[in-house]
Amino acid sequence: MTGFTPTGKLHLGHYVGNLENLLKLKSEYDEYLLLADTHALGAKNFNYKDVRGYALDNLLDLLSVGLSENEVSYYVESDIPEIYELASLFSMYVSHNRALRNPTIKDEIKMKGLGDQFSLGFINYPMYQAADIMCVKGELVPVGKDQEAHLEQAREISETFNKMAGQNIFPYIKTLIGRVGKLIGTDGNPKMSKSLGNTIYLSATIEEVKEKVMSMYTDPTRLHSTDPGHVEGNPVFIYLDAFSKDQDKEQIENYKNKYREGKVGDVEVKRYLITILENFLSPIREKRKEYNDEEKLLKILKEGTEKVREESIKTLKEVKQILNFRY
Amino acid sequence: MTGFTPTGKLHLGHYVGNLENLLKLKSEYDEYLLLADTHALGAKNFNYKDVRGYALDNLLDLLSVGLSENEVSYYVESDIPEIYELASLFSMYVSHNRALRNPTIKDEIKMKGLGDQFSLGFINYPMYQAADIMCVKGELVPVGKDQEAHLEQAREISETFNKMAGQNIFPYIKTLIGRVGKLIGTDGNPKMSKSLGNTIYLSATIEEVKEKVMSMYTDPTRLHSTDPGHVEGNPVFIYLDAFSKDQDKEQIENYKNKYREGKVGDVEVKRYLITILENFLSPIREKRKEYNDEEKLLKILKEGTEKVREESIKTLKEVKQILNFRY
Repeated sequence: MTGFTPTGKLHLGHYVGNLENLLKLKSEYDEYLLLADTHALGAKNFNYKDVRGYALDNLLDLLSVGLSENEVSYYVESDIPEIYELASLFSMYVSHNRALRNPTIKDEIKMKGLGDQFSLGFINYPMYQAADIMCVKGELVPVGKDQEAHLEQAREISETFNKMAGQNIFPYIKTLIGRVGKLIGTDGNPKMSKSLGNTIYLSATIEEVKEKVMSMYTDPTRLHSTDPGHVEGNPVFIYLDAFSKDQDKEQIENYKNKYREGKVGDVEVKRYLITILENFLSPIREKRKEYNDEEKLLKILKEGTEKVREESIKTLKEVKQILNFRY
Repeated sequence: MTGFTPTGKLHLGHYVGNLENLLKLKSEYDEYLLLADTHALGAKNFNYKDVRGYALDNLLDLLSVGLSENEVSYYVESDIPEIYELASLFSMYVSHNRALRNPTIKDEIKMKGLGDQFSLGFINYPMYQAADIMCVKGELVPVGKDQEAHLEQAREISETFNKMAGQNIFPYIKTLIGRVGKLIGTDGNPKMSKSLGNTIYLSATIEEVKEKVMSMYTDPTRLHSTDPGHVEGNPVFIYLDAFSKDQDKEQIENYKNKYREGKVGDVEVKRYLITILENFLSPIREKRKEYNDEEKLLKILKEGTEKVREESIKTLKEVKQILNFRY
C-alpha cells in the first residue's frame, strides 16, 4: 500500500522512489494505491480546484508505468469516510506533543516555508496516513525516505490498538525504501519540485526530455571536456544509473571512466542519457494513450474504491468493537 | 442541535444549561441530539469501555425529561463516518495557531490539569463539533456558556465554506445560552464535577436528593439561624430559583426575605428545596422507568442515526462539490 498527494504530475523521482517496488512486488502482494486528495488541500499556494485533475493524471501515470487495474486497487481518499473516522479515533491516542515532534512534519514546515502558518489538518496528516494504511491492513509500504517518520507513527498507533484489542488485528507495518531513496533534481538540487522546474515528468514528451537533459547540471568543477570530471553526485550519471537497463551497464561504465579521465564531453554523455530515458519513457507514453480517457479512469477508481470501502468498513467495525462502541 | 459527551451521568446543570431550551423549542424546530462518544476518548482517567454505558444512560435521561424520540433525532457520533470526513476537510482551512488560541481549549487544559499531556484529537474537538452541527445544517445550538468559543470557530468554518461555494449552503449558527448559564455545585464550587461529588443527577433517588441538599453549602458568614443571611450566591436559593415553578415564586420570595432577616433556619429552607426538587425530578423518574430498556434505546438510536446519516451524506456531497472532489 502506498499513496500520492495529487498536487502535481508524477516524475522520475516517484518512479525510483516507490513505483519500481510496486512493479516488482505486484505478483506477490495485493497492492493498494491511494490518491490522497484531501491532503492536497493543505498545500500552500495551490488551488483546490486543481486536485481532481492531478488525481486523474496521477492515476493515468500509474496505470501507464505498468500497474494495471487488474493488479492494483486504486482509490481516492475522500470517497472513503471511514478512513477519517479511523484517523479521528487514532488521534485520541496520540499526544499533541508527539504529533508536533514528528520530524517529517518539522521538515515540511521548514521546506515549504510555512512558518507558523500551517493548518490544523496538516498536523493530522500522519493520522490520515496511518488510517490509509491500516484500513486495508497494510503490511508493506513502499515510500520515499522522507515518509519514514510518518510510518513510525503509524506503527506506534497499530501497536496501541493491537494492545487494546489483546491481539494483533493490525500487521506490523514494514517500510520499503526505493533503490534510489531520493532522486536529485536535474539542477543538482536534492529536492525535486515543480516550482524549481528541475523534474522530468513520467509524461514528458521527447522534446521536454531533450530540453531538460541538455540543460542538466553536471560537474561544476569541470570547465573543458578535456578536464578530468567527477561522476559521483553528478546528476547525469545518477540518472544514467537509475534508468538504464542491465544491457546498458557496460557502456555506462565506459562513459564513467572516460569522464573521469577527461576523454568525453558533457554533450555526448547527455545525448546518451536522452536515449536511455527515451527507452524508459516511450513504452510508458504508449500505454498512456491506451488509458487516456476520463470515463475509463473514473471506472477504475470506482471499482477500487468499492473494494477498499468494504474493507475499511470492516476495519472500522473491528476498531469500534475494541472501544465497545456498539449501538 | 446540541450534544453531550458521555463521560458521566447528566445532572441538574445540564437541564438548565440546555435541556430546558430544547424542551421549550421542540415544537418550533427539528431537534437533533448527539451523543459524542468519540470525544469521550480524550478524557483523562476515564476508561473507554464505559463510554457506551454512559451514552445509553444519557439517552435515557434525555428521553425522560420529555424530549421524546418522535420530536428529537438521537444519534451517536461514531456511527456517522461522514462527520469525521467533514471535520477533516474543515481542519484544512483552520490554522493550527487558531485552533490552539481557542479559549475553551485553553480553559479545559487548565481545568482538567492536562498540562501538555493532551491528545491530538483534543485539539480537533472544535472541528468535530463544527461537523456535528453542520452535517445537519444546524441553525440554533443550545449550549452551556463554556462552549461559546467552539461555536465561534464553527461559525468561522461555515463562513469559509459559504464563501468558497459562493452561496450560503450553511446557515448562520446561533448560540442559545441557557437561563442559568452555569449552575454552581452543591458545595458552591462554580464547576460541577463527578469527582467533586457536587452534582445532583437527573436520575437521583429521593434519598440521594435529600442527602445532597442537606449537606449543601449555604452562607458561610451565617453562624446561627437568627443571623441575617445572604441569599445571593447561596446555592440553596440559586437551586430554588432554578427549579421552582411559577406557583412557588411567592413562597421563595418569602423565604428569601426571612433568610435576610435571620428569621428562618437553613434546615427549613433546605427541606423546602427538597420538595421543589422532588416535584421537578419525580416525573422524570417515572418516565425513566418507561424507557429503561436497552433494546428500546438502541432502536431509538438506530432510527435517529439513519436519518442523520442520510443528511450527512448529502452535506458531505455538497462540500465535496465545492472542492471539485467528484470521482
